Amino acid sequence: MTTKMRSEIAEQPAALRATLDALLPRVGEVERLARQTRQLLFIARGTSDNAAVYGRYLAEAHTGRLSTLAAPSIATTYRRRLDLDGVLAVALSQSGRTEEIVETLAWAKDCGAVTVAVTNGGEDSPLAQAADLALCTLAGEEKAVPATKTYTTQLAALAVLGLGLGADVDPGDLRRVPDAVEKLIAEPGDLEAIVEGLADKPGAVISGRGLAFSTALELALKLKEACYLHAMGLSYADLLHGPIAVVDADTPAVLVAAGQGPTLAGTVALARRVTEAGAQAFTVGGGTELAAASSAALNGPDLPEWVAPLGLIVPGQLLTEALARRLGIDPDAPRGLNKVTQTD
Amino acid sequence: MTTKMRSEIAEQPAALRATLDALLPRVGEVERLARQTRQLLFIARGTSDNAAVYGRYLAEAHTGRLSTLAAPSIATTYRRRLDLDGVLAVALSQSGRTEEIVETLAWAKDCGAVTVAVTNGGEDSPLAQAADLALCTLAGEEKAVPATKTYTTQLAALAVLGLGLGADVDPGDLRRVPDAVEKLIAEPGDLEAIVEGLADKPGAVISGRGLAFSTALELALKLKEACYLHAMGLSYADLLHGPIAVVDADTPAVLVAAGQGPTLAGTVALARRVTEAGAQAFTVGGGTELAAASSAALNGPDLPEWVAPLGLIVPGQLLTEALARRLGIDPDAPRGLNKVTQTD
Repeated sequence: MTTKMRSEIAEQPAALRATLDALLPRVGEVERLARQTRQLLFIARGTSDNAAVYGRYLAEAHTGRLSTLAAPSIATTYRRRLDLDGVLAVALSQSGRTEEIVETLAWAKDCGAVTVAVTNGGEDSPLAQAADLALCTLAGEEKAVPATKTYTTQLAALAVLGLGLGADVDPGDLRRVPDAVEKLIAEPGDLEAIVEGLADKPGAVISGRGLAFSTALELALKLKEACYLHAMGLSYADLLHGPIAVVDADTPAVLVAAGQGPTLAGTVALARRVTEAGAQAFTVGGGTELAAASSAALNGPDLPEWVAPLGLIVPGQLLTEALARRLGIDPDAPRGLNKVTQTD
Repeated sequence: MTTKMRSEIAEQPAALRATLDALLPRVGEVERLARQTRQLLFIARGTSDNAAVYGRYLAEAHTGRLSTLAAPSIATTYRRRLDLDGVLAVALSQSGRTEEIVETLAWAKDCGAVTVAVTNGGEDSPLAQAADLALCTLAGEEKAVPATKTYTTQLAALAVLGLGLGADVDPGDLRRVPDAVEKLIAEPGDLEAIVEGLADKPGAVISGRGLAFSTALELALKLKEACYLHAMGLSYADLLHGPIAVVDADTPAVLVAAGQGPTLAGTVALARRVTEAGAQAFTVGGGTELAAASSAALNGPDLPEWVAPLGLIVPGQLLTEALARRLGIDPDAPRGLNKVTQTD
């Protein structure tokens, strides 16, 4: 039987095409709205927070705007106003109905921010209604609890946002993403070896740097929520600052990198360090160089670094789905989770 | 034999007194420097990054200034300038010699920020030299690899910074911290039960919200680096957004809260949810209410929420040291770690 999660992974090329068709014509709207601002504030939780990490690195590395990940409890629990004059606040919620996120976006507006919503919940969702501008993704209904197509289309919306902020990139790269994702679904690489390599392990460290850090965090979350694996998502630098101690024969590392860009060399060196210490380094992307330094490798997309995260997570989604089934877990409905999460 | 880590934990009341004596008279200097700024940017890695999380919540909840945790790779790997006009950049490094942090502080100054260093490396350290103002902690030499007294004195320096930014708190609370820490070292609570409860477990989820989130992250890091435990530090809200699935009979939760403040009720509710699901909830602080909802409890300091993190980590340090010894690990020198960490 094909799981819903597996079907929804396969729907991503179409979901990305539909989302890009809808949002690319709106770059000018973002541009006009952003003129009054000089920095960004991302408001999100869970998978959407991992998308925000992509948005943050994209905005800083390619538009030169300082970007902050909001602490929603300042708005909802401490109820403290901040000075958000000149801030573009971007709230992300798959459903557009998570009250904490809607409330925090309204708070940001009240504190002086210009506001954008990124949601798959449609123009009528509370989050879209609360924002000055809504970038609605067209992923269609997502039935499996672990988010897949709503995540990659969120990244597409953030890439469009980046173009509206004047990112120093080739906008044409975005149009190449759906085909690259299709190719990865057909040829994800050495999935079986990594499923077997993780099946009897209590935990793993998932690491990536810069733009690919978002992918490492998202893969760690997927493995935690659908495979109950103690998966720790860490940046390359934070991993070296302490927790490298946990990587051992029982705890493999999973290292993620784009096929090009300034973080690749460091990731290759880290893979070598892990395998030379006798532990396993599974890799995602990073081209032939990273694969050569790995114990087993998943393919990455043939895309420039700035859009690579839209494809890099896809083999990780396939890995999560296959590992969950291997462990006897229904990936569509892991324990303890609902589709729309509410936190106070 | 007493480990160095255990001795250094015990040195914290004196280290905190010395640091407060040196830094409290400098509140006015911070105030004058901060006048040109309206927001903060913290630059740190590892344990210092957990201290920065405290600084971030303190600045937002009690001074109303937007605070960002920097992504150092934007400076050191992507080499991209950001507009940091009006930003007070605060770099933290125990040694004051971590090149990545020194380089990122210099970058921040070059991008227009006013700069502060928080370090135990002294006025002559490269980090102190690079900053407009250096708040030097007086923890003395720290020999054990896991940071203890350099961490709590960093928090003290950040509390002084908060006073300089006009925090809406009673400055006298800070003077109560050394005695409260002394009391916790003498009476940490049910240490043995929690050591035994974690000794045969592959992992744990460590959670806290708001100001106590910094303590959860720091305790998770300590348990990762000194006990090789798969310890996942998560905010209360992010835990509910997915990874609650990993809390089970094999994966206890460790929940941290101050004895008062707006996040306590949610933490008590989370402890009840965990134990009702059949898993264990070990708690740190949160007063009698949180202890009553726990499987076993460590004491917290009798301090207002804004300074509680200076004491809340102390029973966690004692737990880390005792658990490492119980597992046959030398807490003073865990594998894979050096005292001064360099990342490129």
